[in-house]
Amino acid sequence: MREMLVKHILERSVKFFPKKEMVSRDFSGTFRYTYKDFYDRVCQLANVLEDLGIKRGDRVASLAWNSHRHLELYFAVPCMGAVLHTLNPRLSPEHSSYIINHAEDKVIFIDEDLLPLVEGLKDRIGTVKNFVVMTDTDKIPETKLSPIYSYESLLSKASPQYIFPDDLDENSLAALCYTSGTTGMPKGCIHTHRSIYLHSYVAGLPETTGVTEKDTYMHIVPMFHALGWIIPYLATWIGAKQVFTGPHPDNRDLCQLIQDEKVTFSMAVPTVWRGILNLLETERFDLSSLRMVINGGSPPPLSLIEAYEKMGIPYVHGFGLTDTHAWVTVNMPRKYMEEEWSEEQRRAHMLRQGMVVRGLDWKVVDETGKEIKWDGKEMGELLLRGPWVPEAYYKDPERSAETYKDGWLHTGDVVTVDEDGYIEIKDRVKDVVKSGGEWISSLDLENTIMNHPAVLEACVIGIPHPKWEERPLAYVTLKPGFKGKTTKEDIIGFLKTKMVKWWVPDDVVFVDEIPKTSVGKLDKRTLREIAAKKHEGK
Amino acid sequence: MREMLVKHILERSVKFFPKKEMVSRDFSGTFRYTYKDFYDRVCQLANVLEDLGIKRGDRVASLAWNSHRHLELYFAVPCMGAVLHTLNPRLSPEHSSYIINHAEDKVIFIDEDLLPLVEGLKDRIGTVKNFVVMTDTDKIPETKLSPIYSYESLLSKASPQYIFPDDLDENSLAALCYTSGTTGMPKGCIHTHRSIYLHSYVAGLPETTGVTEKDTYMHIVPMFHALGWIIPYLATWIGAKQVFTGPHPDNRDLCQLIQDEKVTFSMAVPTVWRGILNLLETERFDLSSLRMVINGGSPPPLSLIEAYEKMGIPYVHGFGLTDTHAWVTVNMPRKYMEEEWSEEQRRAHMLRQGMVVRGLDWKVVDETGKEIKWDGKEMGELLLRGPWVPEAYYKDPERSAETYKDGWLHTGDVVTVDEDGYIEIKDRVKDVVKSGGEWISSLDLENTIMNHPAVLEACVIGIPHPKWEERPLAYVTLKPGFKGKTTKEDIIGFLKTKMVKWWVPDDVVFVDEIPKTSVGKLDKRTLREIAAKKHEGK
Repeated sequence: MREMLVKHILERSVKFFPKKEMVSRDFSGTFRYTYKDFYDRVCQLANVLEDLGIKRGDRVASLAWNSHRHLELYFAVPCMGAVLHTLNPRLSPEHSSYIINHAEDKVIFIDEDLLPLVEGLKDRIGTVKNFVVMTDTDKIPETKLSPIYSYESLLSKASPQYIFPDDLDENSLAALCYTSGTTGMPKGCIHTHRSIYLHSYVAGLPETTGVTEKDTYMHIVPMFHALGWIIPYLATWIGAKQVFTGPHPDNRDLCQLIQDEKVTFSMAVPTVWRGILNLLETERFDLSSLRMVINGGSPPPLSLIEAYEKMGIPYVHGFGLTDTHAWVTVNMPRKYMEEEWSEEQRRAHMLRQGMVVRGLDWKVVDETGKEIKWDGKEMGELLLRGPWVPEAYYKDPERSAETYKDGWLHTGDVVTVDEDGYIEIKDRVKDVVKSGGEWISSLDLENTIMNHPAVLEACVIGIPHPKWEERPLAYVTLKPGFKGKTTKEDIIGFLKTKMVKWWVPDDVVFVDEIPKTSVGKLDKRTLREIAAKKHEGK
Repeated sequence: MREMLVKHILERSVKFFPKKEMVSRDFSGTFRYTYKDFYDRVCQLANVLEDLGIKRGDRVASLAWNSHRHLELYFAVPCMGAVLHTLNPRLSPEHSSYIINHAEDKVIFIDEDLLPLVEGLKDRIGTVKNFVVMTDTDKIPETKLSPIYSYESLLSKASPQYIFPDDLDENSLAALCYTSGTTGMPKGCIHTHRSIYLHSYVAGLPETTGVTEKDTYMHIVPMFHALGWIIPYLATWIGAKQVFTGPHPDNRDLCQLIQDEKVTFSMAVPTVWRGILNLLETERFDLSSLRMVINGGSPPPLSLIEAYEKMGIPYVHGFGLTDTHAWVTVNMPRKYMEEEWSEEQRRAHMLRQGMVVRGLDWKVVDETGKEIKWDGKEMGELLLRGPWVPEAYYKDPERSAETYKDGWLHTGDVVTVDEDGYIEIKDRVKDVVKSGGEWISSLDLENTIMNHPAVLEACVIGIPHPKWEERPLAYVTLKPGFKGKTTKEDIIGFLKTKMVKWWVPDDVVFVDEIPKTSVGKLDKRTLREIAAKKHEGK
């Protein structure tokens, strides 16, 4: 039987949908072309890559926003047998140079406004032999990078004839995405031809997104983030009209594109959906073409779901990981939920991450490896495996061994599973408080504390305890008017009315500010260090 | 990355949908159970198979109608590593004994009313060591077969604990379906774990059927025919409620089941859909739960499509082959067809077989191997390949070499492709008339001749011609009142007004009856022999 290759996705797309359209919000305006134009340019790009000396298995990096040029790289690179490495412009220079060297990238394709980022790295990335700048014209901006070429200029001189190889192994590497881990250097997640192909089926299933040729998909999820949640491949395969949001789109740009291009479907993090909603309070846009939006990245508040439902737009909650190619769960209601559940029940349920997608095998286990009860209460770590889930990171045996054990990917996510099999993320394994053999969700505790009217922010960590192994300790910042007035006892008393007794922290520490990581998350590591020092000092 | 195995389909189904229901129209009434009950019995069946001495790779045959027991075999056999061989009760004894011996079946599971069929073969099928009869009770009917066991009795004694092996190769054989070819002995089509798994994705895609857990699927397509067009696997995977139509369902049974079980989706040959329609003229049933039906097996007349559309039930035209696991094309309209086409244009288009499903690679070539033009007129042979398409028949190198060439399955179907990429079947390669380097569809000619008011039936064959290679010759039977009155010239004159001149047969032969094959098709082989003899006699 035939191998599953990315080129098959490309070839079907141009065969059936040559006249379908792609629209790109470009640096200098709106760019439009057809799938046939796209295909021809993918072939030109493959010829360009060959001329740049790229061979099978070589890594080709992109540092780019969502554009038709980025999509051309998505196809030309793996289809010719090389490996696409999408760089995240938001990484620190240390992480960026680390992953470029680790992947041994041979060439970097750079959007024009991102040139300075690479200029800052140029003395540390010795494997890179060529730079290509992607602008709307064939002009090369002033830059310290060398040798540097213009994307449009190279393509214009290349032949649109290219025969993509048919003899690739479906298990060969097609793309690399590094996770922006909070600890240590980023880890390279492996995407093979097989895994992209299979995952493109899964992302389009009726119970996942149900997208078809009739949809117009707008790429909001950055294409440098987990391969844009695989939808660039899926949307191309099915021949959907695609809209690329370009560099730094603001809420107005997004709304304008939805309205102008009659976008039917998109996916984004809740911040984006919230931003659009806020804009709609003061400006009018017609978003009625949207038949569904998907929320990923972090859980949405119920108010956000409800606001979109009020506009007649189903707001679906999903959850994914770079390690598994984005899609892990989607929260679609079952038949009996729609038929038998109250509106309230249904809404509360929408906050859960949902059912694991078809094809992924999963279990949730406690510290001893025993599967937990499906009662929506017991917590355990989510383990995953499946026909598109890799079993190691790229060239990283040590950290692979920490994450991939007995064929299972240990996600580090602590979840509950309800009676319907829907999972809800409760914490990270490293943050959960292990008290007397039971797990306490630091996340749930933080959310509950923040419901107290005096509290601005809360952060809960586990501190060592001689009898219970660990006990929760809460760090709290108070709202301006409450400082010096609200006491520990107030907070603890409040919590006692909201949760079982053994979940309530033994102590509350008031601080002026809770330390944050570089991406704005609560920095629990620093807090743990502070707590440990205090403990020693006692 | 993990192998794709049938057991993963089974395991997901019981994990997520233990309470969902299966309903079987059994020999003695209606049988119901849950997916959990089903799973337990699949485990029991696996233990039974082990006790019967079945090892990995052994072939296990079924001769059965659509029932929950047949579905249990669909899963227990491949999940334990053996190979399911579905026998077609409509094959001749010669073909049946040939394929049982060719597959070297070790055991046959037989529905009670089909025992006489196997009794008639028993002295010719030496590989079969055991027979199991499937009845509603644990009683064994009187029979000459030995040793024979009762399915229900064996299961009732078996443990519902079974660990399905995890170390199967996804490319290992999971099922065998023999094609009931019109010439020669049937050929064994290979289904691997991988191909069943992948094809179950494809059959459920939004642009194919879009089935989900919310659907209630009724199995009309015989489960002994191309694995029930793969839907038994798909429906189980997604946790849809399943309705099995049991032995010899008539139109009333089908309507009753649709009404009682609120069936939302089913697939069948046009004869079945016509039969239901006819019944509805005299009896009332509520079929409003149906959200879609699919037509396969042979093309539907437009009147049938329209009759279902009038009832508010979309009637979708598909086309498949046992060799590719059923699904080759589905005719779903594209966005611009829905938006821009007239009703008339759209309806005419529905008669085409449709677009090749996502994942199958295809081309249509003329005799020289050159791809034909997409103009809806040029004809060529449809070639297929893909990640679930085998590259040989089971243990049949000679005939494999005839059908599988250069990695392509040569379907033997002559088709046109329109500008939208939708194919229409025009003929079989062996029946098409090759005249002066161009192809004439014998099927189109026959249909046109039958539009003449005097014609009852027509059959067109190609006969050798010194200049044009072949020319069409028409055999015609006239309606009772027209015999002796309608002349050759009438028919030829009529055809000249309907088609290009070179398509018109040079001669028309009136006969009392056109010879038919055992399955009721026009027997063109016999007609060719008759024509050849006449030719010699001249």
